[in-house]
Amino acid sequence: MNVVILAAGMGKRMQSDIPKVLHPIAGKAMLQHVIATARQLQAAQAAKICVIYGHGGEQVPSAVAVEDICFAKQEPQLGTGHAVAQAIPHLDDAVSTLILYGDVPLTRTSSLQRLVEAAGGDKLAILTAQMADPTGLGRIIREQGKIRSIVEQKDANADERAIQEINTGIMVAPTAALKRWLGKLSNQNAQGEYYLTDIVASAVADGVEVTSAQPEAIWETMGVNSKVQLAELERLHQQHIALRLLEQGVTLLDPARIDVRGNLICGRDVTIDIGCVFEGQVELADGVKIGANCVIKNARIGAGADIKPFCHIEDAVVGAKGQVGPYARLRPGAELAEDVHIGNFVEIKNSQIAAHSKANHLAYIGDATIGSRVNIGAGTITCNYDGVNKFRTVIEDDAFIGSDSQLIAPVRVGKGATLGAGTTLSKDAPEGKLTVSRAKQLTIEGWQRPQKIKK
Amino acid sequence: MNVVILAAGMGKRMQSDIPKVLHPIAGKAMLQHVIATARQLQAAQAAKICVIYGHGGEQVPSAVAVEDICFAKQEPQLGTGHAVAQAIPHLDDAVSTLILYGDVPLTRTSSLQRLVEAAGGDKLAILTAQMADPTGLGRIIREQGKIRSIVEQKDANADERAIQEINTGIMVAPTAALKRWLGKLSNQNAQGEYYLTDIVASAVADGVEVTSAQPEAIWETMGVNSKVQLAELERLHQQHIALRLLEQGVTLLDPARIDVRGNLICGRDVTIDIGCVFEGQVELADGVKIGANCVIKNARIGAGADIKPFCHIEDAVVGAKGQVGPYARLRPGAELAEDVHIGNFVEIKNSQIAAHSKANHLAYIGDATIGSRVNIGAGTITCNYDGVNKFRTVIEDDAFIGSDSQLIAPVRVGKGATLGAGTTLSKDAPEGKLTVSRAKQLTIEGWQRPQKIKK
Amino acid sequence: MNVVILAAGMGKRMQSDIPKVLHPIAGKAMLQHVIATARQLQAAQAAKICVIYGHGGEQVPSAVAVEDICFAKQEPQLGTGHAVAQAIPHLDDAVSTLILYGDVPLTRTSSLQRLVEAAGGDKLAILTAQMADPTGLGRIIREQGKIRSIVEQKDANADERAIQEINTGIMVAPTAALKRWLGKLSNQNAQGEYYLTDIVASAVADGVEVTSAQPEAIWETMGVNSKVQLAELERLHQQHIALRLLEQGVTLLDPARIDVRGNLICGRDVTIDIGCVFEGQVELADGVKIGANCVIKNARIGAGADIKPFCHIEDAVVGAKGQVGPYARLRPGAELAEDVHIGNFVEIKNSQIAAHSKANHLAYIGDATIGSRVNIGAGTITCNYDGVNKFRTVIEDDAFIGSDSQLIAPVRVGKGATLGAGTTLSKDAPEGKLTVSRAKQLTIEGWQRPQKIKK
Repeated sequence: MNVVILAAGMGKRMQSDIPKVLHPIAGKAMLQHVIATARQLQAAQAAKICVIYGHGGEQVPSAVAVEDICFAKQEPQLGTGHAVAQAIPHLDDAVSTLILYGDVPLTRTSSLQRLVEAAGGDKLAILTAQMADPTGLGRIIREQGKIRSIVEQKDANADERAIQEINTGIMVAPTAALKRWLGKLSNQNAQGEYYLTDIVASAVADGVEVTSAQPEAIWETMGVNSKVQLAELERLHQQHIALRLLEQGVTLLDPARIDVRGNLICGRDVTIDIGCVFEGQVELADGVKIGANCVIKNARIGAGADIKPFCHIEDAVVGAKGQVGPYARLRPGAELAEDVHIGNFVEIKNSQIAAHSKANHLAYIGDATIGSRVNIGAGTITCNYDGVNKFRTVIEDDAFIGSDSQLIAPVRVGKGATLGAGTTLSKDAPEGKLTVSRAKQLTIEGWQRPQKIKK
Repeated sequence: MNVVILAAGMGKRMQSDIPKVLHPIAGKAMLQHVIATARQLQAAQAAKICVIYGHGGEQVPSAVAVEDICFAKQEPQLGTGHAVAQAIPHLDDAVSTLILYGDVPLTRTSSLQRLVEAAGGDKLAILTAQMADPTGLGRIIREQGKIRSIVEQKDANADERAIQEINTGIMVAPTAALKRWLGKLSNQNAQGEYYLTDIVASAVADGVEVTSAQPEAIWETMGVNSKVQLAELERLHQQHIALRLLEQGVTLLDPARIDVRGNLICGRDVTIDIGCVFEGQVELADGVKIGANCVIKNARIGAGADIKPFCHIEDAVVGAKGQVGPYARLRPGAELAEDVHIGNFVEIKNSQIAAHSKANHLAYIGDATIGSRVNIGAGTITCNYDGVNKFRTVIEDDAFIGSDSQLIAPVRVGKGATLGAGTTLSKDAPEGKLTVSRAKQLTIEGWQRPQKIKK
Repeated sequence: MNVVILAAGMGKRMQSDIPKVLHPIAGKAMLQHVIATARQLQAAQAAKICVIYGHGGEQVPSAVAVEDICFAKQEPQLGTGHAVAQAIPHLDDAVSTLILYGDVPLTRTSSLQRLVEAAGGDKLAILTAQMADPTGLGRIIREQGKIRSIVEQKDANADERAIQEINTGIMVAPTAALKRWLGKLSNQNAQGEYYLTDIVASAVADGVEVTSAQPEAIWETMGVNSKVQLAELERLHQQHIALRLLEQGVTLLDPARIDVRGNLICGRDVTIDIGCVFEGQVELADGVKIGANCVIKNARIGAGADIKPFCHIEDAVVGAKGQVGPYARLRPGAELAEDVHIGNFVEIKNSQIAAHSKANHLAYIGDATIGSRVNIGAGTITCNYDGVNKFRTVIEDDAFIGSDSQLIAPVRVGKGATLGAGTTLSKDAPEGKLTVSRAKQLTIEGWQRPQKIKK
């Protein structure tokens, strides 16, 4: 199958310097959603995807450039029919052509599959929808149940305006016929544009049957022309995602207050509190609890882990039974093994922490390898950066790092070693022993408290 | 009165390993809500509560085990009538029996009170509700206003299907009669189950009057069979709580964005910003302000206190005129007296802080007793844990703790003492004097900055 | 024009010690909204504003006292007509009088402008509205399209009750006539009050034409009598603000989860994630991204800056391409130049930070002047306060501040200087050199780990 995606429009009402089809829904450009849907069809039927771009110049091709997609530039933009015509050199006559829209991002593969089946290979198939209020949309005119034409709002008489079945614009056509019909399009109309819709008349004239399929939900065919519509579709999509999570058994404290921008995979008996945002690929294993107002991106959270409120986790792994937060930040490369505890105001970056270790209070752990059962005291800092280079800190099993210690990497704390509070560790600490760097405690006699300076 | 609570169902659509009735609404298991409602009735009329359990094994009894509740196991589960029959040995014939459902959590005591009054002691009383769409529910058939029978959806004719008054399943029956009627139930029906509803026919046959009462709100009789329904009921319940708070005079910046999971008691002129979560017993005195996105559990906040955004407070007390946050964490045992200021990235645990003291920036205060007018500098840490034991820190009135100090407990800072910045305090600091532990400041001649290492 | 604002009511249902008109919508007292609207009219037509106060004593005048507003006390409160009568000495007969309400905060200037035009200078003009459910409100009775009278709910017959056009209470009258009509009001009614509405009958009797204008939206005429209504109006107002932002091209991830309490000015291609609160005057330049759950007050954020989740920014400036957060707190006087990075758990107060400098981890920077390309290590603290005085810290270009350093102000770190980790800097650090204060690292032989103390 050939797939043509129309993505040349400017979207003036978006009030943006970014081409309309590159604005995101659920964290992904609208055009990328359409391409992903086309690719899912492709799994069953090898498809060639051709994106028609125009406004915004090369931003569109560079945003989605991959080998199996070809691009055709439409310049100037003379209507939807003209847009599809730009794809003609790329269309294989031996298979049908599916026409999609880069600003109609949420059509389901299953709906398109039904449309393709309706087309059969020799028919023109239109995705139509029943609208409670069809005002402004092209009506589907049927005779004895068969589609005869599409009438635009301005051309419709009273009877036709009462029709609630509308044209979504998405269609499948036999390719050779499509090319012929496109060649016959005229721009002798009020807008001076070539309308794709006019191919319906050609099909009927040629005796080609015009069939249809319908989407399960109206939002599958909703297009985006403004930020208002973008926000509406974003919320409809998020509602749908939340409903799917609930049906899978996830407990959502408020389905209207979860945002999933990517793929959230949940085990059994997962609970997600209010105000959380998930981005990219996130996996929550059985029994995971996510507290209120967390932001989690590209992460795996192990079974039974408890993520408390206000955590920020990105490109990180939390082991089973882990306890994280509140206010913990796991940055890229943080890998926590089983039963690791990371507490408030603690930042972990590019570090592996083995089982049962704890860093419960205000700390920065970067570029470190930490063993099991290690206790990192409050205020501990790994000095991993000398201004130009980064170095690693190694803390072996069962070490106890006293509060407010600085570990100047590269440095190693041996197995079972203890650092005294406030230690500046510039050389390795031997295993099993106490290492400190501490000035003598002195009390100054005769010292006076500062006085308020008169200004 | 006898109270029978049916709690044996599996709730397959919950997709959970936890028995359905143990899933929480507003932070409390649905069954616990039903028990609490039954207990409120009990205040007026000594009631014996009998919970019928089954699926999930002993999880249900162990979750709610208390002296005044008895349990009866239903195994296998052969219908609601069969479930109630398991309670027969526990039911006192001298009083009526109220039948409730562990998955219908939010019935109000006042509605049940009216039902009990309708029953009178010798009548069968059914809680019925008017539904805009009664599809699928048992219709109440009346003759001359009196209830004659309940007809299930599948058995109803067109006239009966038009009836909007439905059976909620909640009922009160004279106990001796109930036992007799349960004995007559048959499972000769499509499902092969014993239906409690069938006792209505027996009552009518026996000449026992069947009366009814209605709840004030439909959500009082809504049951939960899936996570979708659990989330819907959670939001309805939270809306109701928010409305009640508004009516009491609390200012809620967004009634759709507050979650109360427990008991929130508010004084006059309390303001709660968006996104806050309250759990357990929380008391906010007159004039308290709660900033956006706070999480507060089991806490008392004194009059005029200002809790800024992103605070996390648990098992703690904030005194009058306190200033807390943003990003302050008060952990169990934090007790702040009047006008204490706790600022950003500060954690307080199991510590008493007297009036007018301040810890405004990045600090960890654990297991400490702090006097009045004490200033805790930024980065101060109480080293309360030696890896196996915890010790207390005492800081007396008017002390000034320099920034980045570590206080190695057990240790005492005397009245009016000052600690220099960066002090590691391992022995007591005498009152009124300056104590420091500081290495001499040196500038290294001829030192070169690190160079980028080629890799 | 004269403007009379009725603001004497108690608002008993508000359940508050604060006079009703001082309760805020979008962070500003309702009365202040009304005054601001009146002032916008004033731009075209010099207006004198007179506020009628009463309940709550002098709280109302003291809350809004400015030169161009006069106050008249209504005591006791004998009705709306009596309230307006208190303003008589302040009303200039040469111009018309507009009557507004301190608890109807959101009327748009454009609606009032149309009302003023309808009044013409010699007519009585009433702002009326079409209500789907007008129950309880005064109906507008017209004959041949002309307003003849206003009938209150209790006095209305069935035909009159079916009328959906209602009196909002807002009106414009020729001043001399208004004074005459007010003098004729009677309190011979059920409430024993003087009703302003009764002037309509006087106008008709005098042969003065009664005209009308309508607001664009119903919420423009909604009054607030309870916290429930306050919350409803707050949400309607926030929805309207969100819609306006979307129309301007701002991307809002959830229009139902943004709160703007003041003036939010956005450049092109601004994105605002869920749960953010904006207060006061906030300017977001082109391409700014605001992450989830931020609180931002009186701030300017430069082009292309990225504010990550959980930031708290107040009275601060972020330069172009700045990277802030997550969990960064910018306090009053924080001024970041271009491309400054402020990371997690960092607090900046009253400090200027020049281009390309970074403080990425746990730090407190107060009263400091920081040059370009400076690197502030994790845990750095400026000791700006000696208990009574505050002093400044100066860090010159290209300095590198080692982790966990304390800079005891007043102190200066020279250009290109380096501080070793854990340095307590009490004297200036010379430029280009390494300065440290560090005790020798020692390992204690024969030391034993603490043992668990038996209790």
